[in-house]
Amino acid sequence: MSNTVDLLITHGIVMTMDPAGRVIDNGAVAICGDTITAVGPTADLAGFSARETIDANGGIIMPGLINTHTHAAMTLFRGLADDLPLMTWLNEHIFPAEALLNQEKVHAGTLLGCAEMILSGTTCFCDMYLFEGAVAEAAHAAGLRAVVGEVLYDFPSPNYGPIEKGFAYTRQLIDTWRNDPLVTIAVEPHSPYLCAPDLLTEAAAIAHENRTPLVIHLSETQSEVDDIRKRYGVTPVQHLASLDVLDANLLACHCVVLDDRDMALLATHDVKVAHNPESNMKLASGIAPIPDLLARGICVGLGTDGCSSNNNLDLFAEMDMAAKLHKASRLDPTVMDASRVLRMATIDGARALGLDGITGSIEIGKQADIIVIDTQKPHLTPLYHPASHLVYAVNGGDVWATVVAGRVLMKNRQLLHLDLEQIMANARQIANEIRER
Amino acid sequence: MSNTVDLLITHGIVMTMDPAGRVIDNGAVAICGDTITAVGPTADLAGFSARETIDANGGIIMPGLINTHTHAAMTLFRGLADDLPLMTWLNEHIFPAEALLNQEKVHAGTLLGCAEMILSGTTCFCDMYLFEGAVAEAAHAAGLRAVVGEVLYDFPSPNYGPIEKGFAYTRQLIDTWRNDPLVTIAVEPHSPYLCAPDLLTEAAAIAHENRTPLVIHLSETQSEVDDIRKRYGVTPVQHLASLDVLDANLLACHCVVLDDRDMALLATHDVKVAHNPESNMKLASGIAPIPDLLARGICVGLGTDGCSSNNNLDLFAEMDMAAKLHKASRLDPTVMDASRVLRMATIDGARALGLDGITGSIEIGKQADIIVIDTQKPHLTPLYHPASHLVYAVNGGDVWATVVAGRVLMKNRQLLHLDLEQIMANARQIANEIRER
Repeated sequence: MSNTVDLLITHGIVMTMDPAGRVIDNGAVAICGDTITAVGPTADLAGFSARETIDANGGIIMPGLINTHTHAAMTLFRGLADDLPLMTWLNEHIFPAEALLNQEKVHAGTLLGCAEMILSGTTCFCDMYLFEGAVAEAAHAAGLRAVVGEVLYDFPSPNYGPIEKGFAYTRQLIDTWRNDPLVTIAVEPHSPYLCAPDLLTEAAAIAHENRTPLVIHLSETQSEVDDIRKRYGVTPVQHLASLDVLDANLLACHCVVLDDRDMALLATHDVKVAHNPESNMKLASGIAPIPDLLARGICVGLGTDGCSSNNNLDLFAEMDMAAKLHKASRLDPTVMDASRVLRMATIDGARALGLDGITGSIEIGKQADIIVIDTQKPHLTPLYHPASHLVYAVNGGDVWATVVAGRVLMKNRQLLHLDLEQIMANARQIANEIRER
Repeated sequence: MSNTVDLLITHGIVMTMDPAGRVIDNGAVAICGDTITAVGPTADLAGFSARETIDANGGIIMPGLINTHTHAAMTLFRGLADDLPLMTWLNEHIFPAEALLNQEKVHAGTLLGCAEMILSGTTCFCDMYLFEGAVAEAAHAAGLRAVVGEVLYDFPSPNYGPIEKGFAYTRQLIDTWRNDPLVTIAVEPHSPYLCAPDLLTEAAAIAHENRTPLVIHLSETQSEVDDIRKRYGVTPVQHLASLDVLDANLLACHCVVLDDRDMALLATHDVKVAHNPESNMKLASGIAPIPDLLARGICVGLGTDGCSSNNNLDLFAEMDMAAKLHKASRLDPTVMDASRVLRMATIDGARALGLDGITGSIEIGKQADIIVIDTQKPHLTPLYHPASHLVYAVNGGDVWATVVAGRVLMKNRQLLHLDLEQIMANARQIANEIRER
């Protein structure tokens, strides 16, 4: 083996998030091309010569965070409307703003989201929205790993028109991006309440045929559950079970309102869950029974949801919220401990997206999706336990470097491959149009 | 009136937080000495010449945040122990660590907390801890506004010994700091469960005699309520009422477990409340009925509590949590709207500390306690409503400048009057001692 590597990240506490949960004090990671080739104490990797070296300066070296559910382009609506009843918010603010969208605007909004994600340590995101071809292009331009899928529903879409064209659009996206190293196309029916049974089964068939994830909003609110019960006589989860749509390939987003039978079904079929505590709180959807899902062995990742219901894409803030919310809700300070929440935001998120062989931990042979946290700050001093800091004290602004597939996307808070000023200017211009409508 | 001022802050959205809730686009604030002398559109203040000018560059100019309840020196225990049952956490981790404390260590820990607060936009804090003489000195050295008081309880204190000496120590602090422009000494009995009735009434008498706040932990947990019911036959709030200790001068911290009669008593006596959502969540104390307190007209400020149960002093994160927690708990997205939460962290916090004539808003004649937020960042783009950003998207790291009493303590993320490296080195040294015990 050659002693020359492309990138060497040294002198940090390496939180590998590997199956053994190995933490290496004063550790280093060596990267050749897009792949991790060595992990160990900095001293053990001293023999490597590297084209580029990042000195973590005593900070934390960890896998990049994985956002299992977002609508990145909704950064354009960040703070447009808050604190309103759900239907007022949707009908009077979000839907009219979305009516102005097109491919270019979704591309611009997604790039803004990518910039924010890179700066806050997210290296992979799962997106559901309109004009997802533009989302794939933006993720590609930003250098992020992404799972993206066009939202499918019964009524005509501003992007593809009738649902048959939606299926065709999805198939075309899958073909276009099939061999891309970073972008994966998923099949993404919106929800049981906006998708007829035929749509759901066809979407599931396309996902299976292409071995790609099926992503859906599921049991987000009590009113959804009431609606589906009225229509089909069962809960949304049970409805999907009756359609044979529940399986290990399905990522169910939200899962706030679940009964015991729902949870048993999710567990039996190894369905993956995306937990979005900030959005569920801000929209007053409720508190997902995550400790119960975890107790049943269900894989749960974290997501921010879109910026109109959060209002940022900072997964560090999401971890803090997830860790605290369930303690308050269960009146038990031991639930959702820091290590558990950290796994949700990394390796379990990767597993939720079917990418755990590729990303989510620092292990030899895996893709080099890695971030470095600067801990030389008063709010991160002293440092007793890195997992505690990552969940309870770090925020996205503490990320010092972001690497995806061996490529350094951000260093010392500077984006290296995106024109941030232009991206922000474009977003402000679109916001002006939204204001003026 | 002279046209020369000491400090001019220009070109920002001025969130005055004044009684009219005035927001000035492209506004400016002029400061002479420690006092705000003009507020208005930047163009209107163009005639002033200033010794120093801060250009807010389109960001947000607002009153500094007010932390109504913390134990600043507990920064030393940040992340020392988390996710544990309350008694394990206290008896096996926090109390043994606190046994190592002395005046020097509390000074060092408080300085670390002050550095963190200045960097995250807090200009005033209310502290309760041991060795509060050292806290007052550290706040003074840091240039922060502070309300500090030695914690009083029935058992002997590592600082002052028996309670009689605690009263004497408190009186002495009051005398020492009586004419200080920034530091106010409060009287701070720990709680109804650690303070006998005589202690509570004597503490209240000292507070009244010196017209200074009385600060107490109150109704933080169900077990406290059960304990006080067992001992006195009433709730903690009703117990204080029976001792004649409830009044407008009392700041009650936490107030998580309250019944209707408790809330009526707090309202009738105009008691002020410090709400600490992150700590209450992390320790699984529960969810304080803040919307009910607000509906009764009770003044509620925000607090972070200590860093062992949070684990930071970032009031922006606390605002986000406060706004979202109650929406989830009440299943109502309209409760705790952004404007309301922003008032809690500024002018209502000032009122809770009896300082609303002095700080908490940007008004002519008030002290110049002002922060500037840098909004030229992707996670703060676009900007539709400043209050929304401040509560739902900003974090402490977005604060660009911090001014207390007209003195610039931080600019462009650099502390101007504290040796941050030395402060962090001291804290790490103390952490080593704690680790080795």
